[in-house]
Amino acid sequence: MKILVANLGSTSFKYRLFDMADERQLARGGVERIGSAESPCFVEIGGKRQELKTPIPDHAAAVRQCLAQLTDPASGCLRNAGEVAAIGFKAVHGGRISGVQRVTPNVLTAMEEMSLVAPAHNPPYIKAMRLLAEKLPEIPLVAAFETGFHATIEDRLRYYPAPFEWAEKLHIKRWGFHGASHRYIAQRTSQLLGRYDLRIISCHLGGSNSLCAIRGQQSVATSMGMSPQTGLPHNNRVGDFDPFAIPLIMQAEGLSLHQVLDTLAERSGLFGLSGISGDIRDLEDAAAQGKARARLALDVFIAEIRRHLGGLLVELGGVDAVVFTGGIGENGVSIRTGVCANLMELGIELDPQRNAKAKGECRISTDTSRVQVWTVPTNEELVVARQTKHVLDNN
Amino acid sequence: MKILVANLGSTSFKYRLFDMADERQLARGGVERIGSAESPCFVEIGGKRQELKTPIPDHAAAVRQCLAQLTDPASGCLRNAGEVAAIGFKAVHGGRISGVQRVTPNVLTAMEEMSLVAPAHNPPYIKAMRLLAEKLPEIPLVAAFETGFHATIEDRLRYYPAPFEWAEKLHIKRWGFHGASHRYIAQRTSQLLGRYDLRIISCHLGGSNSLCAIRGQQSVATSMGMSPQTGLPHNNRVGDFDPFAIPLIMQAEGLSLHQVLDTLAERSGLFGLSGISGDIRDLEDAAAQGKARARLALDVFIAEIRRHLGGLLVELGGVDAVVFTGGIGENGVSIRTGVCANLMELGIELDPQRNAKAKGECRISTDTSRVQVWTVPTNEELVVARQTKHVLDNN
Repeated sequence: MKILVANLGSTSFKYRLFDMADERQLARGGVERIGSAESPCFVEIGGKRQELKTPIPDHAAAVRQCLAQLTDPASGCLRNAGEVAAIGFKAVHGGRISGVQRVTPNVLTAMEEMSLVAPAHNPPYIKAMRLLAEKLPEIPLVAAFETGFHATIEDRLRYYPAPFEWAEKLHIKRWGFHGASHRYIAQRTSQLLGRYDLRIISCHLGGSNSLCAIRGQQSVATSMGMSPQTGLPHNNRVGDFDPFAIPLIMQAEGLSLHQVLDTLAERSGLFGLSGISGDIRDLEDAAAQGKARARLALDVFIAEIRRHLGGLLVELGGVDAVVFTGGIGENGVSIRTGVCANLMELGIELDPQRNAKAKGECRISTDTSRVQVWTVPTNEELVVARQTKHVLDNN
Repeated sequence: MKILVANLGSTSFKYRLFDMADERQLARGGVERIGSAESPCFVEIGGKRQELKTPIPDHAAAVRQCLAQLTDPASGCLRNAGEVAAIGFKAVHGGRISGVQRVTPNVLTAMEEMSLVAPAHNPPYIKAMRLLAEKLPEIPLVAAFETGFHATIEDRLRYYPAPFEWAEKLHIKRWGFHGASHRYIAQRTSQLLGRYDLRIISCHLGGSNSLCAIRGQQSVATSMGMSPQTGLPHNNRVGDFDPFAIPLIMQAEGLSLHQVLDTLAERSGLFGLSGISGDIRDLEDAAAQGKARARLALDVFIAEIRRHLGGLLVELGGVDAVVFTGGIGENGVSIRTGVCANLMELGIELDPQRNAKAKGECRISTDTSRVQVWTVPTNEELVVARQTKHVLDNN
């Protein structure tokens, strides 16, 4: 069974193609600048990369273009498009609908109900899924919700101290996100350490960031709340924020509520605080050049990771492994140094050499550190492919 | 020097009178139901309590009534009202103005700018202070802001990951509150343990709740943010909440932004979640009778205390003493049990007998617990009296 896992932006479509017989990645590719006069398309099969530019009007055309490249008799890896058993989506927020689901009108409606809550994520997914369902009805679509892995979080960590009815009627609860990544880290770390009852804190740090406490491969708690604009600072999205600051901002800046929320969702986070960039590498360069606000943004980022790490540490009553993953988690040497600084008393001791040289799956704690600290590259697409296969197998 | 420390509600005035020569409390008293036809007034001097009912139209009249009781030739403790050197107020939020300040029009304006942020606290204080300044100009008024103790918190723990300009222009930062209480605990715990470099986590749990990380008697971090509606759940105020839930609530319930914020400030917290009461004792009774939402509210409360405790623990890199104070902190045996459960690996081990019997200043951890856990009654009024004296001495 071949499964294509899609990653959608409002004007982009990226994918990986898996052969689920051995979970091998057959190909990856994508289209950017969808809707423009010249959309760059690429495909990589067996280490060979091909690129072309052609007008791609919408996401359905993007999928068709990708399928054409994959089934090219000379360079492709599929005999025909019918070999693609399904397209799996790492969908973000379905509110009342979570887990892994065939994409139906009901699923799309549930996602629409959460569009205000996940403004950067839900609208492009809904639009593209709707289009694909219409234009390519022969390919089943499966949504693997990012909230799914967190279904095991107990109510005491899920409910806000707000009217109970809001939680029941409006689904205002701590849902958590990055479920595919944290699930992969839970499984892979257990394999690496040879124990399946581990207490793990998974630190997914990239453009968007969250921590997850894991016990026995299940999510116990996470840094994220109702919306993906919570928890740690993100590249351009705010993290935890005080709603009572909003009327002050509206009044002083002459903004509407939605304009303030747009600012929190698009021009906040590391970008808003630094005024320079939401990218950690840019901020590290700027900080090295003495830019104080870049240094502040990095320091806030580290402080917030530590705050949430502590919360999860106490929830677990101690931890066996702390795992860094995602672009920053895997490559951010100084971020990892900052997060783990001065934690020897709590059993966490980084080895500076190992940390500096880490590449791929690496233990970066000292031999005597009570808690093992690792870098582990995540593989969200493989998790979505597995989940998509599971849904097809059970239908 | 005699200093009267006031505690204001919108229709109440309570006070304690201190002789600062030896910091002895000379009297306490107050007036309730100000503005009603019969306002109950009481005074306690040297263990003797006197009560009366009389119409008290406003806070200035309440202060005059209290001064009359204090200067009563038969039962009072003052020769004349002129002996009161100042009235000190535990003021909540001055935004751009913090620390300890003589009450001036500028201070009152700064407090007014924060009225939307501290809707339950600032308006009654501003109104009463303005009235007293007008009607009793002979008594100096001093505001000791709850944010003052947190002036030592570093920027990395103070800035939100939001536009930098909001912090600079609109004072949207993590201010922290309960400063008088945490300051008292910092000083008193250092005395009790005979060390002044201690790392302490002070847990102020009452109607309104916050945790504070203290190092060397200075505030390092706190669970509270911009407004007093943040951090832990409070009796009727929300704690940490996701702003992106707000448009969903407005839409579904047909409410305005201010109506939603009113609900978060007045009908949320333990009360909103349980639907029963914001009082821990009521909730414990209801939970014992099998009321699931009462149990949920208690469990959320404990989980949130643990989450913030962990954040502060990691910030400090370990802790020497955890101190419970405030009505629930001092008396909430099962809350303390819940907060400290399963933390042996992190060095915290409660002694069940000591915990159950604790009264006043008590160590409640085991002899072998690496971290000492204590109950210590707070004395916010004494801190405000000291700060008020300090301002007078320096004027």
